[in-house]
Amino acid sequence: MHVSEIDTPALVVDLDIMERNLARVAGYAREHGLRLRPHTKTHKSVRLARRQIASGAAGLTVAKVSEAETMLGAEPDDVLVAYPIIGPTKLARLTQVARQTRVTVALDSAYAAGQLSDAARAGQVEIGVLAEVDAGLGRVGVNPGEPLLELARTIEKLPHLRFAGIAFYPGHIKSVDETGRRALAQLSEFLRGILDDFRAAGIEIAIVSGGSTPTLFHSHEIQGLTEIRPGTYVFNDLNTIGSGACALEDCAATILATVVSTARPGQMIIDGGSKTFSSDRLANPAEVTFGHVVEAPGARFHKMNEEHGFIDLAHAEAGFRVGDRVHVIPNHICVAVNLHEKVYGLRGDTVEEVWPVDARGKLQ
Amino acid sequence: MHVSEIDTPALVVDLDIMERNLARVAGYAREHGLRLRPHTKTHKSVRLARRQIASGAAGLTVAKVSEAETMLGAEPDDVLVAYPIIGPTKLARLTQVARQTRVTVALDSAYAAGQLSDAARAGQVEIGVLAEVDAGLGRVGVNPGEPLLELARTIEKLPHLRFAGIAFYPGHIKSVDETGRRALAQLSEFLRGILDDFRAAGIEIAIVSGGSTPTLFHSHEIQGLTEIRPGTYVFNDLNTIGSGACALEDCAATILATVVSTARPGQMIIDGGSKTFSSDRLANPAEVTFGHVVEAPGARFHKMNEEHGFIDLAHAEAGFRVGDRVHVIPNHICVAVNLHEKVYGLRGDTVEEVWPVDARGKLQ
Repeated sequence: MHVSEIDTPALVVDLDIMERNLARVAGYAREHGLRLRPHTKTHKSVRLARRQIASGAAGLTVAKVSEAETMLGAEPDDVLVAYPIIGPTKLARLTQVARQTRVTVALDSAYAAGQLSDAARAGQVEIGVLAEVDAGLGRVGVNPGEPLLELARTIEKLPHLRFAGIAFYPGHIKSVDETGRRALAQLSEFLRGILDDFRAAGIEIAIVSGGSTPTLFHSHEIQGLTEIRPGTYVFNDLNTIGSGACALEDCAATILATVVSTARPGQMIIDGGSKTFSSDRLANPAEVTFGHVVEAPGARFHKMNEEHGFIDLAHAEAGFRVGDRVHVIPNHICVAVNLHEKVYGLRGDTVEEVWPVDARGKLQ
Repeated sequence: MHVSEIDTPALVVDLDIMERNLARVAGYAREHGLRLRPHTKTHKSVRLARRQIASGAAGLTVAKVSEAETMLGAEPDDVLVAYPIIGPTKLARLTQVARQTRVTVALDSAYAAGQLSDAARAGQVEIGVLAEVDAGLGRVGVNPGEPLLELARTIEKLPHLRFAGIAFYPGHIKSVDETGRRALAQLSEFLRGILDDFRAAGIEIAIVSGGSTPTLFHSHEIQGLTEIRPGTYVFNDLNTIGSGACALEDCAATILATVVSTARPGQMIIDGGSKTFSSDRLANPAEVTFGHVVEAPGARFHKMNEEHGFIDLAHAEAGFRVGDRVHVIPNHICVAVNLHEKVYGLRGDTVEEVWPVDARGKLQ
């Protein structure tokens, strides 16, 4: 199948770029002795999870129990659910997953730990737990010092749980510029303090799990870190470029779209909007735009409705007619992938494979 | 099944409110002699399309060929594809749909009309066409006057096409306040001018299809309009409230979510973010917020990541603990529904039915 036979809008991936991305991060992790546990939320695909494992990943990360269930298809040795799992239905399902592979959960409350322990006991499994600490994002995670130690002690005491270490997500570091370098140094200080606290308290920490896309290739500078969980690197997107963690030529995934209207001079409408790209804005927007048109980088994708993308052509390098097709790199590939049933993998202009987005819409 | 047994995040619908919404709009259309052709993009469900037809809809509207294929399940007499259909694959599929029900397409270029004619001839079907005119939004649609007449003449001449009238979408009218009333009066003038043009040119117009959610209950004030295509009214959302077309108690659909973290004082994190609600902002934002927490209207849902909703509780009427559940009315229900595999229909606290989002993710 030739790329021209793909109906639009469609998510297409340049396999050469994707394979280079996989190899680069696996090589980086190996070089620096960091365990690589990729977050599968980006691709939601069993096939790509298998490739990540084949290229050196020591396990997988997921955000939802349903994603963990799906990712069992990739036969991982180890799954980290990097999200507090709350509620009896999800917990019962999680123990089923834990019968098939080693499961670790990151959580930040005694409530979540207690419920997990009860479920693990009922399901006759052991589940690893990482105590989530807030490294500055202010999302999930307890404060360091006594709150974190108390959470760790609670986990240690609960039956059927195995206290495995700590987890954090430095989402407050948007790029490794001068400010970002200072924040990275502070993060090392922060972790050193935590490790000292735990040493003093006589609690062993096996895993320090953290990192983010902007800090990905600086993970080895975060002292104490043992494990990284990157997701976006498999495809990359405009946000990754904006964070400095990749270049334009590292973006493997684009939305292939068709021009459906040029009725208004200086503008074209493409057949994808918020139901195709998502309405995620750029993380660090100079202005509101929704994607980069590969065929005309000067075109401005400035507005969208559900099925309409508005492209301003005032500064475009090319003219377009109804029926023309363009490739658009989205702002945020993780939310875009979740809107598609399948992905076309291209080798040059040939569709080499098509894979389903297995965990698409798996919300529970 | 009791509502408490639904795992979260989940899309739940109050059936009493939904039925009232369906009856209200069907009654309004009947009263004013307007054909009601609901846009199914909001619910993407065959079951709800059947109910719309049962409550008085004369046909259905869709945005995509795949949605038209899906909606054949509701056995409509008539389907309007309110979107230019471009490309041989989609056109061939559309002619298959046209073998099973009457199909009309709204388009704005001679290119699209020519391709549609070729496909209809190859598929041995007749397809109706509405010439799309730009009423002020600047999205799709040609200008009135000669461009519109020329498009109509092109359609009339093409074999296997039936010129059926004109379509427009007054998306530039955000609410019917004083400015909106002036815009509505201008719209009537605009349509009168078009109808005069067509009369003078000797071209008959059977259908004038238009309207929008903000103008829904003012559709009878738009002179010349014969048909409305509302979508959102079945559920309503914060944007509908903002436009003045409904009140809070008319919002039938909410996202049921669980509090997963309260680690940060004055804040809670719920188990839904941009993959559950979409990251659509409000149409007329005073500030950036992503939903209305029914149990605490003063809570501010001010930020989201993919699976995390950040709720600021500084002005909340209630405190929350991990494990508590809340109902959240989203900004834009059409994009939220598209993220869910199924919908729970509630009668009071009882799940009376569960239906699939049949056309979820149908992008082509």
